[in-house]
Order: sequence, then structure tokens, then C-alpha cells
Amino acid sequence: MKIAVDAMGGDHAPQAIVEGVALAQNDFPDVEFVLYGKESEIKKYLTTENNITIVHTDEKINSDDEPVKAIRRKKNASMVLAAQAVKNGEADAVFSAGNTGALLAAGLFIVGRIKNIERPGLMSTLPVVGNPESGFDMLDLGANAENKPEHLLQYGILGSFYARKVRGIGRPRVALLNNGTEETKGSELTKKAFELLQNETSLNFIGNVEARELLNGVADVVVTDGFTGNAVLKSIEGTAMNLMDLLKTAILNEGFKGKMGAMLLKDGLRSLKAEMYYSKHGGAVLFGLKAPVIKTHGATVPEAVRQTIKQIHTMLETNVVGQLVEQFGKNAE
Amino acid sequence: MKIAVDAMGGDHAPQAIVEGVALAQNDFPDVEFVLYGKESEIKKYLTTENNITIVHTDEKINSDDEPVKAIRRKKNASMVLAAQAVKNGEADAVFSAGNTGALLAAGLFIVGRIKNIERPGLMSTLPVVGNPESGFDMLDLGANAENKPEHLLQYGILGSFYARKVRGIGRPRVALLNNGTEETKGSELTKKAFELLQNETSLNFIGNVEARELLNGVADVVVTDGFTGNAVLKSIEGTAMNLMDLLKTAILNEGFKGKMGAMLLKDGLRSLKAEMYYSKHGGAVLFGLKAPVIKTHGATVPEAVRQTIKQIHTMLETNVVGQLVEQFGKNAE
Repeated sequence: MKIAVDAMGGDHAPQAIVEGVALAQNDFPDVEFVLYGKESEIKKYLTTENNITIVHTDEKINSDDEPVKAIRRKKNASMVLAAQAVKNGEADAVFSAGNTGALLAAGLFIVGRIKNIERPGLMSTLPVVGNPESGFDMLDLGANAENKPEHLLQYGILGSFYARKVRGIGRPRVALLNNGTEETKGSELTKKAFELLQNETSLNFIGNVEARELLNGVADVVVTDGFTGNAVLKSIEGTAMNLMDLLKTAILNEGFKGKMGAMLLKDGLRSLKAEMYYSKHGGAVLFGLKAPVIKTHGATVPEAVRQTIKQIHTMLETNVVGQLVEQFGKNAE
Repeated sequence: MKIAVDAMGGDHAPQAIVEGVALAQNDFPDVEFVLYGKESEIKKYLTTENNITIVHTDEKINSDDEPVKAIRRKKNASMVLAAQAVKNGEADAVFSAGNTGALLAAGLFIVGRIKNIERPGLMSTLPVVGNPESGFDMLDLGANAENKPEHLLQYGILGSFYARKVRGIGRPRVALLNNGTEETKGSELTKKAFELLQNETSLNFIGNVEARELLNGVADVVVTDGFTGNAVLKSIEGTAMNLMDLLKTAILNEGFKGKMGAMLLKDGLRSLKAEMYYSKHGGAVLFGLKAPVIKTHGATVPEAVRQTIKQIHTMLETNVVGQLVEQFGKNAE
């Protein structure tokens, strides 16, 4: 299998990306990596050339570029070339830590949608707090600014597929994010989506969940529209970051006592931080495309790159996308 | 001024409510309290009868009652009687810690909307993390399952009014919650709302904000639809609760070392908890009604009741609702 890597995307590129690829190359000798970006920069951090090819380009997409314009105008950007390689059948998946909007655009316009999937969704496996082995897949986290009930039904099917094939969950519990748990709750969108999800017999639909319960592991797959998903994800991130800062301030304000206390709690605080900031489940998938297109955080570290490559490896090994193509082709016959 | 108190609402009623009223009665000798509920129960916790009247009723609305049905059928419920008292001009405001949906229904159907305000919104002053004196007013937090752009404009006006009159902020910065900060971002709803807010010259509209930035104090008033507002509020609450639990577990897992560490950090951890759980800004206002209708958390403690009474006192003193009635009456002429 061959992974096209945008080596220039993210705050710490190319160093973090290249170092992460080197770790992953060691884990997965069956993967060939093609790194797109500035050759001289990439080579600075490359410790091995096993299964690694560099395709040089000077152009890249910046974090503040307007996504669709950037994709159309910067034809030789590292991200665009990586997506193009997948389109041309020269690679099996795209990895990037760059501009999320641009990667979504590259995914939709270059890699392309699976037939009969109307609106691919951005999906992440989010952590269940207190249980690092566990997680839940949520989509759409913001690929779309709004969705129809039919899209939410497709997200249920997509998420359930991913949870089964990639995460190995036998019969994933699929839930709808709503403003109350009762069946009658919701907006026009969620009421109709509830009906569609309930009538889809292939799903183990468990009904509505509220945002307060998400991190408790109430479901394996959580379905929502892109606007709400985006707001919820950013609320969780913002609250967690603010609380960690507050905790740090509380420790500093205690002076020497605080330092002593923090030292005694070192391991506990470290595991707290690890649980918050670092996902062993990999990056965000733009799911519903003809190939895996995966985004990891802009501030990514090599270990996170490695975990995301692991995720891509599982997606390719299980052929989850190929199975989706078959499934949705069948549905429409 | 006279406040109608639903003494039977909330998890710790009537004790927490009655004890909180006693504290507030001491702060505000100009307030008369009418407590609706089981007289014998209320009297158990009543240490003073200064400015306090009890109106006995055996009926109450439970937390799992279906809101609209409960309001219609339980004509003598403590919450219904309190709302009725305001409608009849026997009291100036309603306070409850009970069933939120039922209080919204009682507010809309018994107290009634201000003329020309289409959809009253649920508004809270949420904390700015790291700055306990500061906060921002956000609405709608879930009074409505969906909203039109015109409602969001009204929320901007309502929130700005509250921030000026009740919180004493000279020229409140009003922002729209959106899925990106750029002007062109958003759903159909937020794009139209953006235009309306920008054209409303009476507002100091500062544009879009993202959910990640909310707790940083980027705005004084944040406007959103009820579905998103509900999801965001619950995401913030859920994340904060989960992180505090995780911190507790981290401390316990360290055994003796953890206990020592936590002891050294005691004051810091206490202030962290205080900042998270306890709002000095009071409860949630169903704003846009003919009188203040205020909800405090079901798990409320006497000190929170006191702060919420303080908030109601300011709302009555500044006559913010009376001024809204005048303002919206004028708008429609």
C-alpha cells in the first residue's frame, strides 16, 4: 500500500511530519510513503530512505489560504499533488496536517465522492474520558455548513461501517445528537433524521443523546449535522484547553507549595494531559470519498503522525472504503 | 418589589431554596418573597419570616413531567401558581430551580411574551475562564428547537440590552456564533443573521466567533439558535464535569502521594472548582417575557439561590424588562 503524504502541512512541518513518517515506516514495512514538499527541507529530518520517496515541489497551501481558491490556483501545492496522486491511482490514501478547508476541497474536487454518498462528512474518533481504550466516532464535524435528514442517515451508515471494520466493534451503537433524549425532541432536521435512522434496519440505532453525555461513552457512533458537530467539537476543545490553563495557573499561584503538589501529582497530571491532547485513534477522516483522506491536527507531533498512519494502514488493510463503494453501489440498484 | 418563588423546584427543594431565600432576604430588605409550596416542609427550614409569605400547595411539577402537559394539568403546582401571581400583577418576577421545559412553558403561556418579540430566548451569563469578574451573555440556550435569522437579530438586541442595563457594560460587543470567523462563513441561517446584525446600527456587532473561543471572553453577548446553543452549553458542562472527575481520579490513583499533592494544592483546586461550578452572575433568564422568569440549576445550593435573587433584584431595580417593552413597542410603530 502507498500513502501520499503532504509533508508541508501543519505548524511544525516538515519536521514533525517527516519524523512521524519515520516512526510509522518502522512499524509498517508494508507501506510505501511518497512525501510531497521541499526536498532540501524534508531531507534535513529524514533518517531513513526505506520505502520513502520524495516528490519535490516549492508550492504549498498556507493555513490562512482561502480553501477552494488555493486548491484551484496552487496546482503544484504539496497537498494538491498528494490528492492528485490518489486520483491517478499512484497512491491509496492522502495524509495531511495542513489547512482543513483546503483538504476538504481537495478531497471533494480531486479524490471525489463515492457514488450515492451525497455529502461526505468529517469524522473523528473522540475519547471516552476515563477509558483511554474506548472512543466514539462522530460525524459530521464540519465538512458541511448544513445537512438534510438523508445525509444524517448516511452518516449513521458510514460511522457504523467505520466502527465495525476499522475499530472492530461488533454491533456499534449509533445515536443521534439532539436537544433531549426523548423521541419527540428536536428540530425539524433531527426529528426527520430520527425517523430515518430508526427505520434503517441495518443499524443498531439507540436513539437520541445529549451533548453533555458524549464523553461518557453513551454511543459508539454519534451522528449530527456539520454546523452542530463543528460547534460541539470546538466547545469540547475550548473547555478542555481553558481548564488545563486554569489548573496550571492554580498550581503556579500556590508558589512553592504548588510546585511540590504538582510534583507529587506528576504522573496523574501527565496522564490527564495525555488523555486530553493525544488521540491514539488517529486523525479526522473525510469519510465518503473514493479513498482515505485523513487530516491530523495542525499542531501535530511525530507520535500523533505515527498513530494516524496506523489508522490509515487499518483503513487500507480492511478495505473499508472499497466495501463502502460496494455497499452504496448496491443500495442504489 | 415582590418575587414569586417556586419553593418545590430542584433536587434539594425546599431546603436549598428556603435557605437561599433567607440569605437574600438579609441582603435585600426591599424585597418581599412569596414562597409557593408545602407549608409544613418550607417551615422546617425557615429561620425568619421577615418579608416572607408562604402560599401553601400540595401540587408540584416533577423533573420528568412532560412540560406543556404538566403546566396545563397541574393548575395548582407551585411553579404554576408563581407564574400566575406574576400574570395577575401580584408579583414582579418568578424564580424556580425546577423542570426547565415546564418553566419555559409557564413563562410563554402564563406570563406571556413582550409584544413584537417573536421567540423569547433562554439566556445565561457564562464565565470567562481565568477572570471571575467577567462573563458573557449567550442566547438562545435552548428555549427554541430552531430559529429564524430575525430571531437571532432580536437576541442581539435583547442580549445587548441586558449587558448594558443589568451588567453595566457601556457598549457591549455582540457576536454571532458561527463555524468560522470570516464574514462569508456559515449556514443559511447564520449568513442571513450576520447581515441583519451588521445592519442594526444600534448594536456594536463585532462579527463571528467560534465555539473554541467562547470562554476566553471574546464578546460580551453571543447570539445563536436554540439548538446550537443547547448543544454548546451542554458540551461545555459535560467536558468540565468529565475533566474534574478525571483530575479526581488522577489524584486518587497516586495514593498517599496524590493525597499529599492535593493537600498542597487545596486552595488552587478549590478556586478551580468554584470557577467551574458556581456562577456569581445568577441563573438563566427566559428573556423576552413580560416579567423576569429565572431558572437556577436543579442541583442548586443556597449561595447560588442568593446570587440569582441578586440578579432578579438588579433586573427589577433597572426595570430592564419595562424598558424592553417600551423599546419593542416603539420599533413596531
